[in-house]
Amino acid sequence: MHFSVAIFLIGSVLLTQTDARYTADWKSLDARPLPSWYDEAKFGIFVHWGVFSVPGFESEWFWWHWQGQQPPDKKCVRYMTENYPPGFSYADFAPQFHAQFFNPEDWADIFQASGAKYVVLTAKHHEGFTNWGSPNSWNWNSVDNGPHRDLVGDLGNAVRNRSLHYGLYNSLYEWFNPLYLSDKKNGFKTQEFVLHKLLPELYNMVVRYKPELIWSDGDWEAPDTYWNSTEFLAWLYNDSPVKDTIVTNDRWGAGCSCHHGGYYNCADKFTPGEVPKHKWEKCTSVDLQSWGYRRNMKIVELMDLPDIIEDLVRTVALGGNYLLNVGPTPEGMIPPLFEERLRGVGAWLDVNGEAIYGSSPWRVQRQNKTDTFWFTSKGSTVYAFMTTKPKRVILTLYAPKTSDNTNVTLLGNPCPLTWFPITADAGLVVALPELPFTPGQAWTLKLDGVL
Amino acid sequence: MHFSVAIFLIGSVLLTQTDARYTADWKSLDARPLPSWYDEAKFGIFVHWGVFSVPGFESEWFWWHWQGQQPPDKKCVRYMTENYPPGFSYADFAPQFHAQFFNPEDWADIFQASGAKYVVLTAKHHEGFTNWGSPNSWNWNSVDNGPHRDLVGDLGNAVRNRSLHYGLYNSLYEWFNPLYLSDKKNGFKTQEFVLHKLLPELYNMVVRYKPELIWSDGDWEAPDTYWNSTEFLAWLYNDSPVKDTIVTNDRWGAGCSCHHGGYYNCADKFTPGEVPKHKWEKCTSVDLQSWGYRRNMKIVELMDLPDIIEDLVRTVALGGNYLLNVGPTPEGMIPPLFEERLRGVGAWLDVNGEAIYGSSPWRVQRQNKTDTFWFTSKGSTVYAFMTTKPKRVILTLYAPKTSDNTNVTLLGNPCPLTWFPITADAGLVVALPELPFTPGQAWTLKLDGVL
Amino acid sequence: MHFSVAIFLIGSVLLTQTDARYTADWKSLDARPLPSWYDEAKFGIFVHWGVFSVPGFESEWFWWHWQGQQPPDKKCVRYMTENYPPGFSYADFAPQFHAQFFNPEDWADIFQASGAKYVVLTAKHHEGFTNWGSPNSWNWNSVDNGPHRDLVGDLGNAVRNRSLHYGLYNSLYEWFNPLYLSDKKNGFKTQEFVLHKLLPELYNMVVRYKPELIWSDGDWEAPDTYWNSTEFLAWLYNDSPVKDTIVTNDRWGAGCSCHHGGYYNCADKFTPGEVPKHKWEKCTSVDLQSWGYRRNMKIVELMDLPDIIEDLVRTVALGGNYLLNVGPTPEGMIPPLFEERLRGVGAWLDVNGEAIYGSSPWRVQRQNKTDTFWFTSKGSTVYAFMTTKPKRVILTLYAPKTSDNTNVTLLGNPCPLTWFPITADAGLVVALPELPFTPGQAWTLKLDGVL
Amino acid sequence: MHFSVAIFLIGSVLLTQTDARYTADWKSLDARPLPSWYDEAKFGIFVHWGVFSVPGFESEWFWWHWQGQQPPDKKCVRYMTENYPPGFSYADFAPQFHAQFFNPEDWADIFQASGAKYVVLTAKHHEGFTNWGSPNSWNWNSVDNGPHRDLVGDLGNAVRNRSLHYGLYNSLYEWFNPLYLSDKKNGFKTQEFVLHKLLPELYNMVVRYKPELIWSDGDWEAPDTYWNSTEFLAWLYNDSPVKDTIVTNDRWGAGCSCHHGGYYNCADKFTPGEVPKHKWEKCTSVDLQSWGYRRNMKIVELMDLPDIIEDLVRTVALGGNYLLNVGPTPEGMIPPLFEERLRGVGAWLDVNGEAIYGSSPWRVQRQNKTDTFWFTSKGSTVYAFMTTKPKRVILTLYAPKTSDNTNVTLLGNPCPLTWFPITADAGLVVALPELPFTPGQAWTLKLDGVL
Repeated sequence: MHFSVAIFLIGSVLLTQTDARYTADWKSLDARPLPSWYDEAKFGIFVHWGVFSVPGFESEWFWWHWQGQQPPDKKCVRYMTENYPPGFSYADFAPQFHAQFFNPEDWADIFQASGAKYVVLTAKHHEGFTNWGSPNSWNWNSVDNGPHRDLVGDLGNAVRNRSLHYGLYNSLYEWFNPLYLSDKKNGFKTQEFVLHKLLPELYNMVVRYKPELIWSDGDWEAPDTYWNSTEFLAWLYNDSPVKDTIVTNDRWGAGCSCHHGGYYNCADKFTPGEVPKHKWEKCTSVDLQSWGYRRNMKIVELMDLPDIIEDLVRTVALGGNYLLNVGPTPEGMIPPLFEERLRGVGAWLDVNGEAIYGSSPWRVQRQNKTDTFWFTSKGSTVYAFMTTKPKRVILTLYAPKTSDNTNVTLLGNPCPLTWFPITADAGLVVALPELPFTPGQAWTLKLDGVL
Repeated sequence: MHFSVAIFLIGSVLLTQTDARYTADWKSLDARPLPSWYDEAKFGIFVHWGVFSVPGFESEWFWWHWQGQQPPDKKCVRYMTENYPPGFSYADFAPQFHAQFFNPEDWADIFQASGAKYVVLTAKHHEGFTNWGSPNSWNWNSVDNGPHRDLVGDLGNAVRNRSLHYGLYNSLYEWFNPLYLSDKKNGFKTQEFVLHKLLPELYNMVVRYKPELIWSDGDWEAPDTYWNSTEFLAWLYNDSPVKDTIVTNDRWGAGCSCHHGGYYNCADKFTPGEVPKHKWEKCTSVDLQSWGYRRNMKIVELMDLPDIIEDLVRTVALGGNYLLNVGPTPEGMIPPLFEERLRGVGAWLDVNGEAIYGSSPWRVQRQNKTDTFWFTSKGSTVYAFMTTKPKRVILTLYAPKTSDNTNVTLLGNPCPLTWFPITADAGLVVALPELPFTPGQAWTLKLDGVL
Repeated sequence: MHFSVAIFLIGSVLLTQTDARYTADWKSLDARPLPSWYDEAKFGIFVHWGVFSVPGFESEWFWWHWQGQQPPDKKCVRYMTENYPPGFSYADFAPQFHAQFFNPEDWADIFQASGAKYVVLTAKHHEGFTNWGSPNSWNWNSVDNGPHRDLVGDLGNAVRNRSLHYGLYNSLYEWFNPLYLSDKKNGFKTQEFVLHKLLPELYNMVVRYKPELIWSDGDWEAPDTYWNSTEFLAWLYNDSPVKDTIVTNDRWGAGCSCHHGGYYNCADKFTPGEVPKHKWEKCTSVDLQSWGYRRNMKIVELMDLPDIIEDLVRTVALGGNYLLNVGPTPEGMIPPLFEERLRGVGAWLDVNGEAIYGSSPWRVQRQNKTDTFWFTSKGSTVYAFMTTKPKRVILTLYAPKTSDNTNVTLLGNPCPLTWFPITADAGLVVALPELPFTPGQAWTLKLDGVL
Repeated sequence: MHFSVAIFLIGSVLLTQTDARYTADWKSLDARPLPSWYDEAKFGIFVHWGVFSVPGFESEWFWWHWQGQQPPDKKCVRYMTENYPPGFSYADFAPQFHAQFFNPEDWADIFQASGAKYVVLTAKHHEGFTNWGSPNSWNWNSVDNGPHRDLVGDLGNAVRNRSLHYGLYNSLYEWFNPLYLSDKKNGFKTQEFVLHKLLPELYNMVVRYKPELIWSDGDWEAPDTYWNSTEFLAWLYNDSPVKDTIVTNDRWGAGCSCHHGGYYNCADKFTPGEVPKHKWEKCTSVDLQSWGYRRNMKIVELMDLPDIIEDLVRTVALGGNYLLNVGPTPEGMIPPLFEERLRGVGAWLDVNGEAIYGSSPWRVQRQNKTDTFWFTSKGSTVYAFMTTKPKRVILTLYAPKTSDNTNVTLLGNPCPLTWFPITADAGLVVALPELPFTPGQAWTLKLDGVL
């Protein structure tokens, strides 16, 4: 492939000039330290937006469920049969992706108000439609079709103006790309798709938009050697314009997930039982049934604010980052209920963010397996989250070891609380004040001077 | 007019058979007692749904703002110019009113869960499009166009299956109906529109759907004599199939509003300063800017739950009914945020409904003009609503006169509260318990045995 | 009906002022002489244009064949099933009736070039859609929908600027108008449709556009008494703005066709065997299968020029007028093949029109039943048409009686031809010149001074 | 480029096995004899069909005129502004390319009836949209979009079933392909477009559809070295599945036209003044203003049958082939007027084809520069075409040298005509019979035994 060959040649030349270069193998790549901004951020917003937002039915996997899997999903087939003319194709949805109300400033305001520190947009999902004018995806991108606009660029500018980090989701595979299907048929021994489509586009995207995070996906059908993943990552870490700040995840080929790459996502919505040895991120979605917009969402299918906050707290207590997804409408709006959830998290973080941002897991994550107290720490300060309202005003915490310098407060309230130790070794009892009303229904005790 | 003449003849014959008939004048019509179900219900849901839901821009008055008023609303004109081809007409929106997800059972479940006791749907708004197959509105109704479905009938069945009362909104005037415009040009001295369109359709609607409430609107440009309102109401009260249960409002001609008809709406969102002498209703909308669906709603433009509950409480305390509006999408969904608001009201009414349904205004409505305590009563029981959380745990109520039998509880909690009188004449002090968390942020004290 | 009542009152007043008024009965109406322009014109163009032009499938009866008749036409049902979403209604076609290329000047140029002397446009076909902004057909007309233009008015101006007469086709019934269906269900004992829709619209149309011909249709399901036809015609002949020039046909109620009214159409495409006693018109269509545009026309289904000219000649020889139909596209173009046919007729009439316009049937119409010679006459001039090329150069005509003044020429060629009588009583033999090439393949001999 | 490299390697290996291989240079390639079927065929049909058929405005260059050239064509811009919403893109036309009436059997019947011996379809025009499911043009082809059908394959089967030869038009450049634009910006020193798009697609097309003619176009902006034309042609002539029968034209790079390749088209509609030394073809279109369908065609802009036949005769007399174009509608119909023209040519060829098919230019092509007699020959037979009707019945031909065996007939009539020589050296005078009517208005004298 013409373009990448040139890049690699430049790379080879430079290789002699420095000792700190990564080689295109997992041993070298996995040894790269994760840029520090990522762990400190803790909370990000995930945005699934694409042609799939137009049907807005079942999920962003609509195309596959309708026409890819065997047998097809009956609901999707019926929805199309009942509402569209025979022969209507997925490509026919693109002209209805109008984005007429898309105001990236409004979106970025909401994301900032949510307390998130980074935003990840689907630059290209499995449908192959790029949310920017990719030269390798002619007439199947947001500039030639539908919005007629550089969605990736426009949102990026707004997000960065608010000092949020900007990441891009990129699907390696494309369900119906005939080049990919041909390679697949050949047992991935040919790389027509990778050389003529995937890599030129991906390099172009990095150079053009300089993302600080690449959220790779769609890797599982083929080994990383098919995708040329290690070569790409070596370039990304050594020579790309974002080599110092870029963060990636772990979806770079069959078997990579949870084993190689930057931080680990493992499976979607995966949450470990204890603090993993490797930095991880939980991605999840306000809409429990979909990452993309659904026209027929009901309340019962959506996370409420207390659920979200408990999930965030649990994730951070276990050392993870929390990437919360919303699916905008094809018109370019974030549905009001999603906006309310995001602003709700932000209001809660306004008071409790001190215990989240820049925190570390404590030596104990949870008081015991059945209650809802979670811990984080910063130096000799421990934060204890109550994600349900305690039934009694006297709260018992068994793990913290108090000292003479121990001071206990409720975040949002400067008054020291009355407490006394349970035993000399560990534990304390705290007299809770009246807990202020918060739609998030979670509160944080700050314990200074404990071990 | 053929049809109505026939009706009136039947009426004339029957007139001799009974003494209790109403005559077609306000004196007689205004003397009719309001059917009792209405005042007991207190809380209803208003639903604005029509072709205006398709553009979903600015409000259900979109057509008028775009093409009717002079000068036109620049935002509407620009929206059309930027997003539609030249010559695109309002009628062209109708085919996109698909209602493909409209499930009247789901809607009725939500309305029931909201605690509402009646539902009012726009059978026909000022655009003239009927949400049923009106023979007088051929090819401009929901059966011939768009949904291809009897929306009025289908929702009615679902609503009534849940023992909710069913009302229909009907606009007397139609902005752009050429027959109406011709009559208007003639100074309302001709009645082409009334005789050939409005009345045949309205009689037909009543006979076909037997609504228990007619929410009349669009009356203000012409006198009631133009609309033939008193004749219609006389038929409605004397001879229609709903003569015993029908409730109407007060919009029956220029000058009628707040003076004639059934209950009074007066102006949209009107709230009186004290209990009026005549039964009234406050209609308002979760979306502060529109009654119809808007595609670009933002949270800041929508009522939150505490605001709604305070508004409901204030209205009922002042003797009114509260008709809360939501605008469904053209696809037939109630947006999740609206669903959450309605379910939130319902959750609050599950605990506090006793103080609302069937209540009467008390001799005092509000402790004083600056606080947020409101009262209702049932016999010797008085309900005191706290629509913000009191700052202190000792609450002082000046108006109630206690007795030996006085008992004070918090709704949702059977335990009697400690209280003591302030003076022999009036007033008591109550020791509040910890107020349970409620998203509605309002609580009710029940005072038995007070005056 | 308010409007017509007013009209009739005016009529009654005027009735006393003149002796020549027509009464609303067939005896009186049928006695009215046909305005002379009509018989002299001989050749007109019929234009079927409406929403039916959008599907452009099978014929202008598409709606009925698809959704009206029982059982429905399978081809139409299948076409819709295969190409449109379920629930797509006929009304949904209207927004695609763009007429973006409609230039009435171009049309009128073509009509003028065809040699036609009058043009008849479908103002409203059985679908009920009016090609003008009828106040009684709100949102189902060409101004509120589709073209957003007064098609009737715009074409009328262009046609009249070329001194052609302008007529309007109007369907009395409307297949799916619910008012009509209701009257029909009532055995036509009610007249809701006639009083509230048909007549106000028809009077309005006449007053507004002043047509010189009303081509009535759609009458056959109900008697003329249902349609109020005689009252309408009495007004039309006595008091309308076109009372002196208006021509109508014979479709005014079941049993009227071929018996009452102005000229007779009898059945579509009807041709009598001999000269009828009453002036008649043959309407026919270049497209043998349809009057409206069909998107899938093939040559074999269309009349060629010689067929048209023979049909025209035969019709005029038998005393009829010839109304030739073309169906424009929904974009507003007359398909080029139709244009070519019309210009072809015009080119032929440039040479042979003398024998057509203002002519009368001769005492013999056709030499004999098997040949293709037809005759017309003007005074002592007889025209003999040869609609196929004679096989021999010596032509024998048996019927004309020659005289000393007899002169024979070929139209288009001033040279007298050699001829001699067969017997003293009748007949002559003519030596034909070489017949010039004409795409119409028909020639005319002019015989002056014969009996 | 992976694919083509493999092909070339195979080619290199085979090169050693045979002496008759062509090398990738013009000297070698130009030396290849033209397969004989082509010159014998004389008459072909050209079909321009693509997304451009949907706007159907001005010409198949609509996209370029609208959005490519500077300044843009005002008519195109205005047409879009007046009829489409802002932001409507060319890609948005694709879903309206329905082809619902496309019946390749009907088309092939018409082509066969026209007397054509080959058919050339636009497999891909400058818009880049492929009329087959090209893997290199994902979501911008007739299988993924619009017709959802393999137009190239379906028409090919029908055409070949009637023993017609099948050719494919392919545009080298694509106006708006970003890879092409990037190469162009680089002065054609990069070949991203050629290697990743053009060549894989072109090889694939040849292997898949085995065309007998490749009508190359869109070559002029770059040299043949950019397009890799000589390598492609060497493969085509040496190793492709159509190496023995394939015919190509001369548009393979800037400066190639009229100098290199198979037969020569030179410029569009080019006609030489005398017989060129190299086999050539005149391509022209019934619609004088466009190759693609235009929705607003008028008769005056279209060739009539006599014009077409004269053009055909002139072309064949000068040694050329005649490729006559029609533009089908987006619905898949050949407009009736085009059908009539094609059938008209066929009817004329039924009588006169003997003088066309398999003929050669005679030593004289035209009697003189001002008359309309043209000649072709087969051995000692000379054909003299009269493309206008001679004014006199005695016809003088100066060039033919008669002999004792000379026999003169009119094609379509077996009777020998009377003739006599003018001088001993050359020339004859023929007594014409009456010329039969033919819509083509052209006749052929057959002169056997002349020199």
